[in-house]
Amino acid sequence: MGRTRFNDQNCGVAQSLDAFGDWWSLLIIRDAFFGFRRFADFQRHLGIARNVLTQRLRHLVEHEILERVDVGRHGERYEYRLTAKGDALLPVLTTLREWGDEWVFGEGREPLVMRDRHSGQRVPKTVVRDADGQALARREIRAEPGPGADETIRRIFDRPSRAGGRS
Amino acid sequence: MGRTRFNDQNCGVAQSLDAFGDWWSLLIIRDAFFGFRRFADFQRHLGIARNVLTQRLRHLVEHEILERVDVGRHGERYEYRLTAKGDALLPVLTTLREWGDEWVFGEGREPLVMRDRHSGQRVPKTVVRDADGQALARREIRAEPGPGADETIRRIFDRPSRAGGRS
Repeated sequence: MGRTRFNDQNCGVAQSLDAFGDWWSLLIIRDAFFGFRRFADFQRHLGIARNVLTQRLRHLVEHEILERVDVGRHGERYEYRLTAKGDALLPVLTTLREWGDEWVFGEGREPLVMRDRHSGQRVPKTVVRDADGQALARREIRAEPGPGADETIRRIFDRPSRAGGRS
Repeated sequence: MGRTRFNDQNCGVAQSLDAFGDWWSLLIIRDAFFGFRRFADFQRHLGIARNVLTQRLRHLVEHEILERVDVGRHGERYEYRLTAKGDALLPVLTTLREWGDEWVFGEGREPLVMRDRHSGQRVPKTVVRDADGQALARREIRAEPGPGADETIRRIFDRPSRAGGRS
């Protein structure tokens, strides 16, 4: 259950992974999306050791993905609630679930189904879209250094030999 | 750098995490999206130990996210290429990067920017949408047991006390 710090990397993917901490954290966040709020509920559902859960919850609170709220009730004094930053992980959790459903379980064997509360319809698969709403494939997207690019990134894009130059 | 197996869990998120193996794997997949194909290039870019990289590449090949192709060239005999299953991770990598860009780096400090090759326009942020293409918030989505739900999932949904019942 170790983890590696990637926060020296000038990359949004690496920074996201560093903010989560490890796989457990993503499952804790998933459970928070399901409405779990109490230590005991997370523990029961994840089957995770108390000290590991304590440490992961602390990490997520430090990274402002969860907030610890004192609700002052006996035996369930604290609740862990998603912040706006945690709430913004909906597309990450959704795309992870959808990929697992499609490529691991396979169609017709999804453990969960998501529905739009208003219409009752299944939520369509989340895809990367262009400005007109059309789905984009990997090869239709190109990366370029952004305003926060460091020297390493600029050097990669200056190399004409970069295999294919795809994003 | 340990990892935990979640593949006993009836959950697309957990299954996806298990297929990746660990954080390194997602960074290897990210680099494959950038067009990296050779062991030496992955190693140089990630600054990862040879044995760790060997093990992670093997894991990704076993899970059919990458395929190892014999290109028979001296010094770069094998290439690692994304399969269709690996290619289908575009929404996962995109949403991870976008969350890191927004919540860790902040607007105007993105290391990378993605553009639609056809129009040159920035690729808009990937969000969960309803059948009409409107963005959905977490609270507008409800989960229900899918065709592959096991007893544990059914039990969670049978509990009327589940806090809020949100997905």
